[in-house]
Amino acid sequence: MTEDRQPALPQRLGAELIGTAFLLIAVVGSGIAAQRLSSTDLGLELLENSIATGLGLALIILTFGPISGAHLNPVVTLTAVLRGRMPWSLAFPYVSIQVAGALVGTVVANLMFGLPATTISTHLRDGPAIWLAELVATFGLIVVVYLIGDRQQLGVTAAAVGAYIAAAYWFTSSTSFANPAVTVARMFSDTFAGIAPTSAPAFVLAQLLGTAVAVALLRFLATERSSAQPGT
Amino acid sequence: MTEDRQPALPQRLGAELIGTAFLLIAVVGSGIAAQRLSSTDLGLELLENSIATGLGLALIILTFGPISGAHLNPVVTLTAVLRGRMPWSLAFPYVSIQVAGALVGTVVANLMFGLPATTISTHLRDGPAIWLAELVATFGLIVVVYLIGDRQQLGVTAAAVGAYIAAAYWFTSSTSFANPAVTVARMFSDTFAGIAPTSAPAFVLAQLLGTAVAVALLRFLATERSSAQPGT
Amino acid sequence: MTEDRQPALPQRLGAELIGTAFLLIAVVGSGIAAQRLSSTDLGLELLENSIATGLGLALIILTFGPISGAHLNPVVTLTAVLRGRMPWSLAFPYVSIQVAGALVGTVVANLMFGLPATTISTHLRDGPAIWLAELVATFGLIVVVYLIGDRQQLGVTAAAVGAYIAAAYWFTSSTSFANPAVTVARMFSDTFAGIAPTSAPAFVLAQLLGTAVAVALLRFLATERSSAQPGT
Amino acid sequence: MTEDRQPALPQRLGAELIGTAFLLIAVVGSGIAAQRLSSTDLGLELLENSIATGLGLALIILTFGPISGAHLNPVVTLTAVLRGRMPWSLAFPYVSIQVAGALVGTVVANLMFGLPATTISTHLRDGPAIWLAELVATFGLIVVVYLIGDRQQLGVTAAAVGAYIAAAYWFTSSTSFANPAVTVARMFSDTFAGIAPTSAPAFVLAQLLGTAVAVALLRFLATERSSAQPGT
Repeated sequence: MTEDRQPALPQRLGAELIGTAFLLIAVVGSGIAAQRLSSTDLGLELLENSIATGLGLALIILTFGPISGAHLNPVVTLTAVLRGRMPWSLAFPYVSIQVAGALVGTVVANLMFGLPATTISTHLRDGPAIWLAELVATFGLIVVVYLIGDRQQLGVTAAAVGAYIAAAYWFTSSTSFANPAVTVARMFSDTFAGIAPTSAPAFVLAQLLGTAVAVALLRFLATERSSAQPGT
Repeated sequence: MTEDRQPALPQRLGAELIGTAFLLIAVVGSGIAAQRLSSTDLGLELLENSIATGLGLALIILTFGPISGAHLNPVVTLTAVLRGRMPWSLAFPYVSIQVAGALVGTVVANLMFGLPATTISTHLRDGPAIWLAELVATFGLIVVVYLIGDRQQLGVTAAAVGAYIAAAYWFTSSTSFANPAVTVARMFSDTFAGIAPTSAPAFVLAQLLGTAVAVALLRFLATERSSAQPGT
Repeated sequence: MTEDRQPALPQRLGAELIGTAFLLIAVVGSGIAAQRLSSTDLGLELLENSIATGLGLALIILTFGPISGAHLNPVVTLTAVLRGRMPWSLAFPYVSIQVAGALVGTVVANLMFGLPATTISTHLRDGPAIWLAELVATFGLIVVVYLIGDRQQLGVTAAAVGAYIAAAYWFTSSTSFANPAVTVARMFSDTFAGIAPTSAPAFVLAQLLGTAVAVALLRFLATERSSAQPGT
Repeated sequence: MTEDRQPALPQRLGAELIGTAFLLIAVVGSGIAAQRLSSTDLGLELLENSIATGLGLALIILTFGPISGAHLNPVVTLTAVLRGRMPWSLAFPYVSIQVAGALVGTVVANLMFGLPATTISTHLRDGPAIWLAELVATFGLIVVVYLIGDRQQLGVTAAAVGAYIAAAYWFTSSTSFANPAVTVARMFSDTFAGIAPTSAPAFVLAQLLGTAVAVALLRFLATERSSAQPGT
C-alpha cells in the first residue's frame, strides 16, 4: 500500500485513475445488477453488492498496489502525507485523479447497464446515526490499511481491505462509503449505490473526522512499537 | 496469536479494547442491518451476519495480533495462561479490558443504527442442545486458534479463525458465541444478536467446559509432537 | 496433506477421528440449520450449507494436516496408498477411524439441534445422472488434493480443498459427497444432508470409479513432470 | 500463469483440456443447479452461480497452472503471444484444445443434470450496453491476469482471477463471459448460463477489443517499470 517510490508519475497517476474507475464500476455496477435481479429483498441486494465490492477492491489493490500504492481514496492519501510517507506536492495530483477516475467509473457503470451517462441521485442518507457510522467506518479503514499494510505482504493487505469494506457495508448504518472520491462519484448515479448531493458534504466531513482519530491511534500505537521491536 | 512479548502494556490493552469493540460492532451491527433488510428469511439474516462477523474477526486479528496477540476473548486468554504462554497477572487486565471493549462496541453499534445506547435483550437461548452446541463451538475455537496459531503465519491464522466463526454460526444450534466477553455484551442489545441475561450464565459455563476439553486435547497432541518433531 | 511421518499412531488416529467428526458436524449441522431457517428456498439452504461446509473443511485440514495428513476420506487414503505414500497396513486403521469419526460427528450434530442421536435418512439420491455427478466430483477432488497438495503450502491446499467442495455442491447434481465415510454417516440423519441407505452403495461405487480415473490422470501427468522438472 | 516451459506438450494440452472442461462444468453446472433450486429470485441464482464459478476457476488455475499455465481462455493465450511469452505455433493447439475442453465440459454438465448432451441456447444477449460490458470485463481480466501474475505467487494469482470473475458477474451487465472458448461452449446448453448462437459473434468481437486495450495498457505501464525497478 505504501511503496511510493519506483514508477514514474504518469504510470502512477494512470494506475490511480484506472484503479479508482474500476472501484466505482464494482460499487455502482454491482449495485445496479443487484437492484434489478433481487428486487424483493433489500438485504440480498446489499449482500450481492458487498461481495462484488469487497472482491473488486481487493483485486484492484493487488493489481495496482505495486505501481501507485493503490490509494484510490483521498483519506488514504491524506494519511500517507500526515505520516510522512508522501509529500504534499504529490497529494494534490493523487486526489484529483482519484476523483476523476471515480467519475469515469460511474459513467462506465451507468452505460454498461443502458442508463444515461450520469443521473443525479435522489437517495438521501442523513442523520447523526449515519454520520457516526461513516466516522467509525473511515476510522476502521485507515487503521486496517496502515496497521496491516505496514507489516504484511501485499496479497494479505489487499484481501484484508476488501474484506473490511465488505463487512463494513453490513456493520455500519451508512453502508460504509469511507472515501470522499467515492462519495462524490456516487452522487452521479440515481441507483442502488447513489447518494443525494445534499447528503454528501456531511459524509465527507465525517470521513475526515474518522481519519483524524485513526491517525491519532496510529501515533499512539507506533510510539511504543518503534522502540520495542525495531527489527520486526 | 501468541506473540506476547514486545509492546508495552498500554498499547496491548488499547489493542484489546479497540479490537474487542470492533468485534462487537461487527456482530451486533451486522445483526441489526440484516434484521432490518432481510426480514422475510431468518436464514438470510444469519448468512449476512455470519459473513460480516467472520470477515470482521479475521481482520481484527490481523490488525491487532502483532500488538496484543488479539485474544479478544477471555477463554483464549485463559488457555494462554494454562499453556504457560502468559502469566496470571496479565490475564486479569486482559479479560477486564475485553469485557469493557465488548460493551463499548455494543453501544457504538446500537448508536450507529439510531437505537438507545443499551437495551436489555429478551432473546432466550436455553436448553441442553444449545448448551452442548456452545461447548462444541468453544472446543473447536480453542483447538483451531492454538493448533493453527502455533504453526502458521498470522495471515493464515486470522483467516482460519474468522472462517471458523462464520461456519460455526451455522453448524451449531447456539450460533456459536464461544466467547464470555461477547456473551456479556450481547445482553445489552435487544436485536438479532442479543441474548437474554438469564440465558448468559449457562453459555459461559458451557464455554469454560469446552475450553477445558480443548486444553486436554492440546496436551494429548502436544505430548507426541514435542518429542517426534522437535525442529518443525 | 501427505506428511505421513512424524507423529505417533495414537495422535494421528485421534486427529483423523476428531477431524472427520468435525467435518460431519459442519455438513449435517449446517444442513439442519439451513433447513430450519431458510425453508422457503432450497437454493438458499444449499448456499448456506455449502459455505459452512467449505469453510469447515478448509479449517479442519489446516488444523489436523500436520498431525495426520487430514485425509478425512477413505478415497484420499486409498490414493495415498496407490501412489506409494502410505503402507496398506496404515490404510485400514485410517479408514476405520474415519468412518467412526463421521458417525460420531453426525450424532453430535443431531444432538446439538435437539434431534434423536440417529435417525435413518429417507432422502433418495438415485439415477445415472447423479452417479455420473458423484464420479466427476470424486475425480475432481482427488486431482485437486494431490496436484495442489504436492506443490503448495498447507494453507493454500486447505483453502483449495474447502473451496472445491463448496463449488462442487453446486456444479454437480449429487451435491458432491465424494467421500465414502461421509456417505455412510449421512445415512444416519434424516435431515437436509441425509442419504437413504439404499442410495449409498451406488454412491460409494461411483466414488471409487472417480478415484481410479483420477489416479490414472495423476500418473499420466507425473510421468512427464518427474523427468522434466526434478527440482521443482 | 505464465510458466510456459517445463512439461511436454501432451501433458500441457491435457491440462488445458481438463482445466477448461472443469471451468465449463462449474459455469454451466452451477447455473443449472441455481436455476432449479432458487427459481424465485434471479439475483440469488446469479449469486450461487458466481460463487461456484469464482471458486472453481481459482482452483483450476491453482491445479493446472504449473503444468500448462492454465490459460483456459483464447484471449489469455493471445495476450501471452503478443507479449512474447509464447510462440504463435503453440497458440493454435492451445486455443483448439480450450474450445474442445469447453465443449466437453458443457456436455458433462448437461448429462450430470439429466439433460440431453447438447441443446442450443435461446438466451439472447444483445445490444451496445452488453457489448461495452463484455469489452470492459475482458479488459479487466487481462489486466488482472498479467499485472498480478507477473508479480505474485500462483496461489495469490489464482485467487485473484477467481475473485475477478465472481465480481465481474455482478458489475457487468453481460455477466462477464470474457472468454471466447466459454462463449462458444455456452451456446450448447439452453439453461441459465446459455447464450444464443446469434449473440455469440459480437461477444467474441468485444472480447478481442477489450484484449487489445488491455495489451496497450500493459505496454504503457511496463515501459516505466522495466527501467525503474529491474530487480523486482
